[in-house]
Amino acid sequence: MKIGVLLSGCGVFDGSEIQEAVSVLIALDELGVEALCLAPDMPQHHVMNHLKGEEMEPARNVLVESARIARGEIQSLADASADSLDGLVIPGGFGAAKNLCTWAFDGPDARVQPAVAELILELVKAGKPIAALCVAPVVVAKALQGGGLSAELTLGTTEGASPYDISGFHGGVEATGMKAKECPLGEIVVDESRKIISSPCYMMEASPAKILAGVRKACAKLVEMAKA
Amino acid sequence: MKIGVLLSGCGVFDGSEIQEAVSVLIALDELGVEALCLAPDMPQHHVMNHLKGEEMEPARNVLVESARIARGEIQSLADASADSLDGLVIPGGFGAAKNLCTWAFDGPDARVQPAVAELILELVKAGKPIAALCVAPVVVAKALQGGGLSAELTLGTTEGASPYDISGFHGGVEATGMKAKECPLGEIVVDESRKIISSPCYMMEASPAKILAGVRKACAKLVEMAKA
Repeated sequence: MKIGVLLSGCGVFDGSEIQEAVSVLIALDELGVEALCLAPDMPQHHVMNHLKGEEMEPARNVLVESARIARGEIQSLADASADSLDGLVIPGGFGAAKNLCTWAFDGPDARVQPAVAELILELVKAGKPIAALCVAPVVVAKALQGGGLSAELTLGTTEGASPYDISGFHGGVEATGMKAKECPLGEIVVDESRKIISSPCYMMEASPAKILAGVRKACAKLVEMAKA
Repeated sequence: MKIGVLLSGCGVFDGSEIQEAVSVLIALDELGVEALCLAPDMPQHHVMNHLKGEEMEPARNVLVESARIARGEIQSLADASADSLDGLVIPGGFGAAKNLCTWAFDGPDARVQPAVAELILELVKAGKPIAALCVAPVVVAKALQGGGLSAELTLGTTEGASPYDISGFHGGVEATGMKAKECPLGEIVVDESRKIISSPCYMMEASPAKILAGVRKACAKLVEMAKA
């Protein structure tokens, strides 16, 4: 079994959230399935200095930076196909909402990268499962909307501590035709018909061990669905 | 209890090995101890394109890039002191051997960054434990040599599959006055008198789940020693 892991850079503020991405690689390895890291070969929207929280120059490439998490073992998204995968995980981080789509700037009117949308829709149409972590469900929402499809998913819960406006995110994905569901850290929301799994991760206040615990649950469900 | 995590950049070929560093943050969190990420505020030796395995421009800063792993919650090594820490973990990655010291270029004649050597020696003299993962024992070896001290440590085993010359590394650390001991992936070597723990991690052929398992063992021993 081979599961794609779609990265969007290397670092929470301009790429993939590193702790979530590594937790996915750990969880898939624990489940005995092969992980194939993927990323689009394109410029990052911008580069953030993660120490100061400020933009910095010069530009960086999403695939090249994602390769850091994957120890160089990564494939360009352009070379990936739904046929060769049994499922897909999309870790969070602002890169999902800045590079894979433009949600960070345009909200529900975001554009999603065509190759990203295509892979997601092909997997869904083939009945293969997708796990979207943290903010990544917005990418799935935009892809599904483009394909005239809908799913139930989560960005977290308004009842727990979060640095983000969870109700705003939930209103946003509902504006794209999805159904948003409250979900605490460490739990998952499963859309059984579309085989879409989502889990809040660092959309909520969290810590590295709590991230791994939630990611494990999402990946276990993904592999279960991929085997069914 | 507060344990320092000394980072050396963000990416195996020019900084900290990301999967090892995240595994340390997970393991310390699981053990209920606070992790304080630290890195020297200095230019990286160089920047590697992790996709192509080639050097690239322009320069990057060790502290700024390390902040990606730590989600921005990181302190400059210059502001750290052994007094405020109960122990230290040094993940591997070429950054340990290129930025924290010059072992990658100079072998046993390497120079170690003065602030790194100072922190290590102060911790050892205070009887506080240090866990050095993967190639990071070469940093500890150079610091201890500079302080006229010695310890038993490991870079891995010649009996397992490794992309590196383990016997060459072991000969090198013995040339600095240390005692090298063979150790397989997932196991640890403990110098009880100096309270130095080492474990091979990605010095051997490994995978994300195996890395976490070995890191957990090293961190559990570190916290046990820090509490004693």
